[in-house]
Amino acid sequence: MQYIDGIMRDIKIAYIGGGSKDWAWKLMADLALEEALSGTLKLYDPDIKAAEDNAIVGNKISNRKDVKGKWNYSVSERLEDALKGSDLVIISILPATFKEMASDVHAPEKYGIYQSVGDTVGPGGLMRGLRTVPIFIDFAENIKRYCPDAWVINFTNPMALCTRALYEAYPGIKAFGCCHEVFSTQALLASMLKDMMGIQDVKRNDIKVNVLGINHFTWMDKASYKNIDLFPVYEKFSKKYKDIGYNIPGEETWEQSVFKGANLVKFDLFSRYNLIAAAGDRHLAEFVPSCWYMKDPETVKSWKFRLTTVEMRIAKDTERLKHRKEVISGVKELELNHSGEDDIKLIKAILGLGDFVANVNFPNRGQMGMVPCGAVVETNALFSKNNVSPVIAGKLPDSVTNLVMRHVLNQETIIKSCLKKDKDLAFTAFINDPLVTLGINDARNLFNEMLSNTKEYLPGWKI
Amino acid sequence: MQYIDGIMRDIKIAYIGGGSKDWAWKLMADLALEEALSGTLKLYDPDIKAAEDNAIVGNKISNRKDVKGKWNYSVSERLEDALKGSDLVIISILPATFKEMASDVHAPEKYGIYQSVGDTVGPGGLMRGLRTVPIFIDFAENIKRYCPDAWVINFTNPMALCTRALYEAYPGIKAFGCCHEVFSTQALLASMLKDMMGIQDVKRNDIKVNVLGINHFTWMDKASYKNIDLFPVYEKFSKKYKDIGYNIPGEETWEQSVFKGANLVKFDLFSRYNLIAAAGDRHLAEFVPSCWYMKDPETVKSWKFRLTTVEMRIAKDTERLKHRKEVISGVKELELNHSGEDDIKLIKAILGLGDFVANVNFPNRGQMGMVPCGAVVETNALFSKNNVSPVIAGKLPDSVTNLVMRHVLNQETIIKSCLKKDKDLAFTAFINDPLVTLGINDARNLFNEMLSNTKEYLPGWKI
Amino acid sequence: MQYIDGIMRDIKIAYIGGGSKDWAWKLMADLALEEALSGTLKLYDPDIKAAEDNAIVGNKISNRKDVKGKWNYSVSERLEDALKGSDLVIISILPATFKEMASDVHAPEKYGIYQSVGDTVGPGGLMRGLRTVPIFIDFAENIKRYCPDAWVINFTNPMALCTRALYEAYPGIKAFGCCHEVFSTQALLASMLKDMMGIQDVKRNDIKVNVLGINHFTWMDKASYKNIDLFPVYEKFSKKYKDIGYNIPGEETWEQSVFKGANLVKFDLFSRYNLIAAAGDRHLAEFVPSCWYMKDPETVKSWKFRLTTVEMRIAKDTERLKHRKEVISGVKELELNHSGEDDIKLIKAILGLGDFVANVNFPNRGQMGMVPCGAVVETNALFSKNNVSPVIAGKLPDSVTNLVMRHVLNQETIIKSCLKKDKDLAFTAFINDPLVTLGINDARNLFNEMLSNTKEYLPGWKI
Amino acid sequence: MQYIDGIMRDIKIAYIGGGSKDWAWKLMADLALEEALSGTLKLYDPDIKAAEDNAIVGNKISNRKDVKGKWNYSVSERLEDALKGSDLVIISILPATFKEMASDVHAPEKYGIYQSVGDTVGPGGLMRGLRTVPIFIDFAENIKRYCPDAWVINFTNPMALCTRALYEAYPGIKAFGCCHEVFSTQALLASMLKDMMGIQDVKRNDIKVNVLGINHFTWMDKASYKNIDLFPVYEKFSKKYKDIGYNIPGEETWEQSVFKGANLVKFDLFSRYNLIAAAGDRHLAEFVPSCWYMKDPETVKSWKFRLTTVEMRIAKDTERLKHRKEVISGVKELELNHSGEDDIKLIKAILGLGDFVANVNFPNRGQMGMVPCGAVVETNALFSKNNVSPVIAGKLPDSVTNLVMRHVLNQETIIKSCLKKDKDLAFTAFINDPLVTLGINDARNLFNEMLSNTKEYLPGWKI
Repeated sequence: MQYIDGIMRDIKIAYIGGGSKDWAWKLMADLALEEALSGTLKLYDPDIKAAEDNAIVGNKISNRKDVKGKWNYSVSERLEDALKGSDLVIISILPATFKEMASDVHAPEKYGIYQSVGDTVGPGGLMRGLRTVPIFIDFAENIKRYCPDAWVINFTNPMALCTRALYEAYPGIKAFGCCHEVFSTQALLASMLKDMMGIQDVKRNDIKVNVLGINHFTWMDKASYKNIDLFPVYEKFSKKYKDIGYNIPGEETWEQSVFKGANLVKFDLFSRYNLIAAAGDRHLAEFVPSCWYMKDPETVKSWKFRLTTVEMRIAKDTERLKHRKEVISGVKELELNHSGEDDIKLIKAILGLGDFVANVNFPNRGQMGMVPCGAVVETNALFSKNNVSPVIAGKLPDSVTNLVMRHVLNQETIIKSCLKKDKDLAFTAFINDPLVTLGINDARNLFNEMLSNTKEYLPGWKI
Repeated sequence: MQYIDGIMRDIKIAYIGGGSKDWAWKLMADLALEEALSGTLKLYDPDIKAAEDNAIVGNKISNRKDVKGKWNYSVSERLEDALKGSDLVIISILPATFKEMASDVHAPEKYGIYQSVGDTVGPGGLMRGLRTVPIFIDFAENIKRYCPDAWVINFTNPMALCTRALYEAYPGIKAFGCCHEVFSTQALLASMLKDMMGIQDVKRNDIKVNVLGINHFTWMDKASYKNIDLFPVYEKFSKKYKDIGYNIPGEETWEQSVFKGANLVKFDLFSRYNLIAAAGDRHLAEFVPSCWYMKDPETVKSWKFRLTTVEMRIAKDTERLKHRKEVISGVKELELNHSGEDDIKLIKAILGLGDFVANVNFPNRGQMGMVPCGAVVETNALFSKNNVSPVIAGKLPDSVTNLVMRHVLNQETIIKSCLKKDKDLAFTAFINDPLVTLGINDARNLFNEMLSNTKEYLPGWKI
Repeated sequence: MQYIDGIMRDIKIAYIGGGSKDWAWKLMADLALEEALSGTLKLYDPDIKAAEDNAIVGNKISNRKDVKGKWNYSVSERLEDALKGSDLVIISILPATFKEMASDVHAPEKYGIYQSVGDTVGPGGLMRGLRTVPIFIDFAENIKRYCPDAWVINFTNPMALCTRALYEAYPGIKAFGCCHEVFSTQALLASMLKDMMGIQDVKRNDIKVNVLGINHFTWMDKASYKNIDLFPVYEKFSKKYKDIGYNIPGEETWEQSVFKGANLVKFDLFSRYNLIAAAGDRHLAEFVPSCWYMKDPETVKSWKFRLTTVEMRIAKDTERLKHRKEVISGVKELELNHSGEDDIKLIKAILGLGDFVANVNFPNRGQMGMVPCGAVVETNALFSKNNVSPVIAGKLPDSVTNLVMRHVLNQETIIKSCLKKDKDLAFTAFINDPLVTLGINDARNLFNEMLSNTKEYLPGWKI
Repeated sequence: MQYIDGIMRDIKIAYIGGGSKDWAWKLMADLALEEALSGTLKLYDPDIKAAEDNAIVGNKISNRKDVKGKWNYSVSERLEDALKGSDLVIISILPATFKEMASDVHAPEKYGIYQSVGDTVGPGGLMRGLRTVPIFIDFAENIKRYCPDAWVINFTNPMALCTRALYEAYPGIKAFGCCHEVFSTQALLASMLKDMMGIQDVKRNDIKVNVLGINHFTWMDKASYKNIDLFPVYEKFSKKYKDIGYNIPGEETWEQSVFKGANLVKFDLFSRYNLIAAAGDRHLAEFVPSCWYMKDPETVKSWKFRLTTVEMRIAKDTERLKHRKEVISGVKELELNHSGEDDIKLIKAILGLGDFVANVNFPNRGQMGMVPCGAVVETNALFSKNNVSPVIAGKLPDSVTNLVMRHVLNQETIIKSCLKKDKDLAFTAFINDPLVTLGINDARNLFNEMLSNTKEYLPGWKI
């Protein structure tokens, strides 16, 4: 890397999961729109064809005249080749196929267990974790060997488990995890300002918040816009819409999109805890006792959000594949829009081009009270040259800590079960998940069935 | 107090709940059998008649020739009079009547929530806590005023909450809580030694254990008899009896007594956590998700323990009353048997008559890992002159900590709700109890009903 | 307060020590140059005349046409009047007279103890602390009563002790302490960049640092300018100038000004600890064993800094008084220059006008490892609307923690001795100060003499 | 090992430093007098001849008819042979020769630095630590390899450093360190009871104390005999003898023996801190600023203790050698007296033959407040079968913590310097020792000289 005339040149980025049709494309667009950065990006993916397609797309973009940030995209067939000499490593992977995902999400249904997402906690999140953690352990060991000083940005779910696994395998790693769920809540608050106070054009970034919790189950205990404390406003706002729900004007409604909700879960949680839950309702609902919001599909519907089926995910994926083909063939040109993520700002800050405060998933060093040190939590952090320093976020009230801690400790158990390939230990996490409301025998049957469905991704386990 | 010729004379004890027909009688017998202690014991009880009856019984005992420890029993009409000048304060109370207890235990049943005891956690334990904590706050304030240096021994449930309340109101208090559930598990292990290894006549006290957890949900992670590690023995023992259950020969079975179990819950927990749960099955079952052991009365029966009804409690109480009358009238003479409790040993240790190690309920000063400081936990402690120093017990594995922490944090929430008389805060504890598996509306209805049933004991609350 | 069209209007500030000729004037200038803030400023000072003079100066400035921030200055005769309704409280006081200060600095000299400043640690710092802490206790109690939600900015030394005292007396206070010693070190690093690498015009604010330690004994373990890590540069720099010292071109040298040094102490500390000590040499030298830099005046001279005499302080004060008179009489006009402090940026951030990260003195909430919670430490913090959240700074290496901890624990002892007015306890802090190298008898004599010299400011003490 | 009829048979003990003429003999006598233990003891010592002599002595004892505990003594030429299969490992070594010890104790004298012992802290203690830690690292690695489950008892100084090194190299080790300095203070208190209250025949063990601190700088904040609080008695006692000193009747005085003191340091420390320092004056004096008690030989004399010269140590050693020869040749028979140490009780407790509470050197797990976890501290612990659980001792007042922490952090620095063979890091510990009162240049010269004198024992260091 070299800093010349305001531009950081020759940055070397390894992108693990380089065949991605979502995060990789967002990053390509964001890099293209940023003039202060340039360099090379090596795409690594077990699906080499997908990585090659992405390299074609990336280089097409770089050749366009309207593009500010020039990057050279190539494919690395081996992880080692991608990592060597890297300044940054980006990880966005999705292990296993839709078959395993179908088991994660739908196998529990015959036992009366429903999941709105199934990728973070619940039976599905656990299975996904068991599959993904060993892969991240492997990544961390390779990073230690080939680019120990690189910064590692993780976009993969289950976010907390994956990031935790990186530090478990290589405690000296410089890694953090990024997620945009908090941004959506900032956007909701901006929209609220227009709805309740007539304040127009508030940007997401101007909503200042104190964030604390774990990924997809994050909370705000302070929120302001300029000199306005947003809590009294939100109290009225949440009461106003507690029955009909609230939709940011212009966005799809929960009836239109399976990925949307009407914020009723958020409003309900506020009524009890006086805190703003800062993730989509579909995520939040999975972290609390299933009797609250997910007893059965009718209950889910009454809270105005939907259960994502794997069929829907397949449809979305097919659409993206089609889009990529069209771009490669030249039928369509890629529209370059900022993704709305903070990725570029974080990268610039770490390279020394301007300090920045943002929410991030990071091992607890004391930024969040009550939670054990080392567990990955989500709070604000100060990003600066070669450094991420968490900002002390304080602690949640005991009643909310209680909801959060259950998952924190479960995740610690899951990590240990992965390291030991210990089925019995994983089972103790399974039966303590708030969505698992089964007697011991049923629990064991479902657990064994799900584990068996995903055993291809659990080498070395006795299943 | 004066120490003369091996005897501590003129000890002044205040007994709050002096009309008690259970703990008070045990203490009277134990004191009568102990030659190294003597003095006066002031009984205080809102039910003065009961206290007076006990004083008669106590003095009758003291006048007997076969008695070693001579004590003078009197009644104090005001708490203040009992406390002034006391060296020791003993608290064993049972606030409210069987009417409130009936609501605690049985009101939840129409919502499908069953409780085997209902005095520690669960909806019933919460209500009992809300009633009892303010009374203990008042005791602590009086102790601070009238006998700030006295040692306070609590026998009242919910043990952790009551002891926690004493420290909340008077942080300088010298208090601890005693419970015999761990003793029963030591007795079980002694019986196991005979059953599995033919070792006869092992005393409960010779089973050495490391204890950690919270009252009625305590765990042993080490247990030995002389040079024998009891864990491998227990593993075989629990497998041998995992279906038929185990009954200590000579004791009542779970079919004979509603207060007994067959240890199936304990054996099941061992199969998962490799730890010995150290309380009766009836207690243990209430601390974990209700789907495990308490889904419905059939499930309870299949685990070979029973739901205590309030009717049974009334019957037991009537029997005790009758016994007291007979003793007072001289129809019967009291049999003086050691209670099997450690009370006398603890008192002697605190007075300087010999150090002693025993399990105790005490605020966490670091003796138990992961649990916040100040929460009342149960571990071993070293009792010595004017001093209780907890022994560091280490930490439970994450999966068990997870089960325990849920109640620890709930109890912190309950304490705060009592101090603020805050119904909404108490509700957040209610809905996070593992026995409460209701949707938000049902939960609120049951909570309000139960609160209303006990409102006479919640002065100042908005109900 | 009201936020209208980008300006926060009607801010109410109480200035305790409003007769100040140093900090008050800096603030007046800074406020005058800031367009986003306006309101009223109430000056409170036991020396009413001084406050009145400052009010005249302040209003003169506000009436000038070239001034952007309009403020109305008035004098409050009673502290209560100044505080009521305040949004902000600023404290910059200097209790006692030059007579007491002369004892602080010079009384120890006859025992061979020399001090370069004598206001933070050492025998002089201790005495100043004993005088000042009770005053701050009183301030905190008044703030609690009259403006409990106001933010309190402290500029008074001993910084850590004074800020600590505010939190001791009113734990809910929103207070922090500001000091510019770190800024000078940032300026030194900026100057170094020119000297070593030819990089011109680097601003102090563009030197990004991680700060940790206690006031006047603060350390940097990371420092960068854009993408440049400054540590390798500083290593060479400090070796280059380790004998002759380094003076920022254009600034007074240590020979010219008693308040300057040649950075030899800083360079020497770097040679041992590989950390950049971030305060003036005169301050740093007082925190370490006196044999290192302060054995006697010759040793001091050999390290190229000077012992400040009280005579010099009197001279400086007289000069300032003269300047004020001239400004009031109109002989001179005040030049309005930015002070170089961060005060305005911090105030704006707290009022919601833009987040800001700066170093600050604040109770330890975990931002600094090894140091007990509650002790006032100096690290970076994120300032945002109605909030100061420390940034986790990590921990110093054990050898430096060792030097710092000695003062942290001494300060805890001093606070306790002030609260109890306990001379014997204060003496235990005295004899553990690294500058006090006396036998017990000599130590007691010097301590008693110094205490006696300042006893007028120690009401209630038995001296 | 086998437990038969009340006796633990076939215990295997490895004794590292088996040629010892002090601790080994004490242990032999204690084992001979204990009927509940028997087995084999393998002596390992680089000085094989010494080990062989001890084996002869040991077996001679075992063959005597009046002996209760029968042990078979043999010599292991390789450490590995001694360790394999061991149940217990005992370490009492003294690396280097009197030449190095002479440098430790006397080299600093020409710089005006005096040491009364020079084996724990001060320049001498540091050098001894640097020599000994690597040897203990090696022991720990061998124990991990050859007898990972053995219990390890360390009698070697510097106690805290050596024990800390064992845990650093093998965190799973089951090790603790034993020292008798606290016993002497218990004996002093027993003697005080006779002197002040006429109570006769009090045994050392009946003095119950709460111990906290670090080895040779340990403190009691509670002490009692039966129901008597010893603090008010000690206050009067220490005043009564504060000038003339106190000698336990029948013991040698400080004038008679260089290893004795008159407790003036202890009494002086009590006058300031209201705590009983629980080690010999010669040790205590080395932990505090040298100006207090060790400025020069006259000061030392005025506090009525003496500087141990290496000459005296040589004389003592020669005497012991002579004694051993006489025993081996049969000229003399060994008198079998209990050593007064707790060693046998601790061994029995760990083997399951009865729980026991005693003071011990053990890594901090929370038993001592303020001190970082992992640092080796001295407090009480509960010894039970295969277990040592520290008793929570609380924390020292800040002013005493301050004195202790300086050494705790220095010891952490020393451990790190040993691991890295980092001379510069060791130097930072050296200059922060309270006995080192030198300017930087003198300090560096003395340090280099001492390091050079001991370099034979520092393989791999750049000296």
